[in-house]
Amino acid sequence: MIYDLIIIGGGPAGITAGIYAARQKLNTLLITKEFGGQIAEKAVDIENYPGFRKIPGPELMEKFVTHLKNQEIEIKFIGAKEIKKENENFVVITTKKERLKALAVIIATGADPRPLEVPGEKEFIGKGVSYCVTCDGPVFKDKKIAIIGGGDAGFEAAIFMTNYSPKIYILEYEPEVKADETNQEIVQKSEKIEVITNAAVKEIKGENFVNSLIYEDLGTKETKTLNVEGVFVEIGSQPATSLARGLVEFNERDEIKVEFETYQTKTPGLFAVGDVNIGTHKQIITACGEGCKAALTAFRYIHLRKIS
Amino acid sequence: MIYDLIIIGGGPAGITAGIYAARQKLNTLLITKEFGGQIAEKAVDIENYPGFRKIPGPELMEKFVTHLKNQEIEIKFIGAKEIKKENENFVVITTKKERLKALAVIIATGADPRPLEVPGEKEFIGKGVSYCVTCDGPVFKDKKIAIIGGGDAGFEAAIFMTNYSPKIYILEYEPEVKADETNQEIVQKSEKIEVITNAAVKEIKGENFVNSLIYEDLGTKETKTLNVEGVFVEIGSQPATSLARGLVEFNERDEIKVEFETYQTKTPGLFAVGDVNIGTHKQIITACGEGCKAALTAFRYIHLRKIS
Repeated sequence: MIYDLIIIGGGPAGITAGIYAARQKLNTLLITKEFGGQIAEKAVDIENYPGFRKIPGPELMEKFVTHLKNQEIEIKFIGAKEIKKENENFVVITTKKERLKALAVIIATGADPRPLEVPGEKEFIGKGVSYCVTCDGPVFKDKKIAIIGGGDAGFEAAIFMTNYSPKIYILEYEPEVKADETNQEIVQKSEKIEVITNAAVKEIKGENFVNSLIYEDLGTKETKTLNVEGVFVEIGSQPATSLARGLVEFNERDEIKVEFETYQTKTPGLFAVGDVNIGTHKQIITACGEGCKAALTAFRYIHLRKIS
Repeated sequence: MIYDLIIIGGGPAGITAGIYAARQKLNTLLITKEFGGQIAEKAVDIENYPGFRKIPGPELMEKFVTHLKNQEIEIKFIGAKEIKKENENFVVITTKKERLKALAVIIATGADPRPLEVPGEKEFIGKGVSYCVTCDGPVFKDKKIAIIGGGDAGFEAAIFMTNYSPKIYILEYEPEVKADETNQEIVQKSEKIEVITNAAVKEIKGENFVNSLIYEDLGTKETKTLNVEGVFVEIGSQPATSLARGLVEFNERDEIKVEFETYQTKTPGLFAVGDVNIGTHKQIITACGEGCKAALTAFRYIHLRKIS
């Protein structure tokens, strides 16, 4: 049994790819440990998926899943461990060592933000701790916030938050920030943003909602407190990409390199969509758009394979 | 008065750009003759916008518009006639000769399919006549159909429809088809597809639904009838691109060239999203994804302009 297409991942990108693949009558298998991706866990309502002015993440995900299940598609709840190429076909090896074969594969496994791993972080997710300014920024209107991470992601998050926050601290562990020149220039010109280097975050504190952040100044060894009501963690993400090593190339952030518009990797027939790839804009709506484009490109690839 | 951003177009791409631009606190103006784009006119329900299993086009559009109007954004109901660059700013000249200025512009004016302009075509839109196989194909399961146009679009539509239809005619006006080699090879190998060249479509006939198509064989001058229940018109589209001449480059189909992922044209600060650009996959969900990406790129462009 060889599927036309295996889609790995049950977030917005994978589900959209599934809807489109099924509508094209591809014999499609979608595998995922569970449905949802990051949006199933979002505590703050989603306000930027067009068509829904304001909707809880789990509710939007339920609508996606209902839509998917209405198609002719096979779904297996299992993780993927490895993708191999054998002759002209792909073999997806599951976490239970099952070997699933397909003519084409779409990787839509997403990326988890890298956590700080300090006390208070987990408890206050959705109550002041966030990993996405574009998603949650507006909630912090008129509130002081801290952004952890002095790379481009942290600087860009701070620039974005000047729309909302009167005071923004950027905390960087190293003695020097890593953001590019342009970002540094923008931040220097902002009166709202203050950069603190040599800062090791120790704890996030609060009652119902975050009210302060404790860090150690690694230069002076002093422990300091910032009175902030929001903490955005921007220290990178962990794309779930280990399963495709050898078949794809990565950028410095371990994101899979793709050709935009087709979303094909360096291996013909192998696609990567959503947060797992090198795309700059990681939104629900962009993940869906990419899932659609990859499925339509895969359709053509599979059709050509079948007649050749 | 100089806006941060002017968005031209009120379909899914423009509306999504508007939602994202407003959420980024850009001082944004969206101009459009009316809301809707192509989906407001779709007679067949939409089944491929993730989150809505099945929804009439006008209803989905109403949800989009409600979502947009909930943002801080200015909306003007007027057409755009021309986009110029004056010094570092863009000037959008409306059909009423108003001059609207902005730091950046997103073109989201869509593309209308080019009509055949034969008797019966208009009357049977949504009743057997369609311009989009990906949208409407499944409706024609087990029905004979004709596809008008022997270019790549027509051939690809026919290949797609082999999933559904037992018999597919491709009608081409010229003595030779124009589809590329690969498409011709796929079609030759299909037993379901028959190509008819030298065919001038004269009329589409039916009662409640299409039941036949009349064409003239330009070689023999005979009038012939095909008993088909569906007619897909694939003779190109008319992107509404005349307004940006000079500032953008076009492909052979008059679509605006963009860099994928940023959706920027050859003029910095000028973007093109949705059906108006060279993108291969023209779906509601892809138009939305592109609108989002362009708005997020524009945000950064505008921010840099303001501090430089």
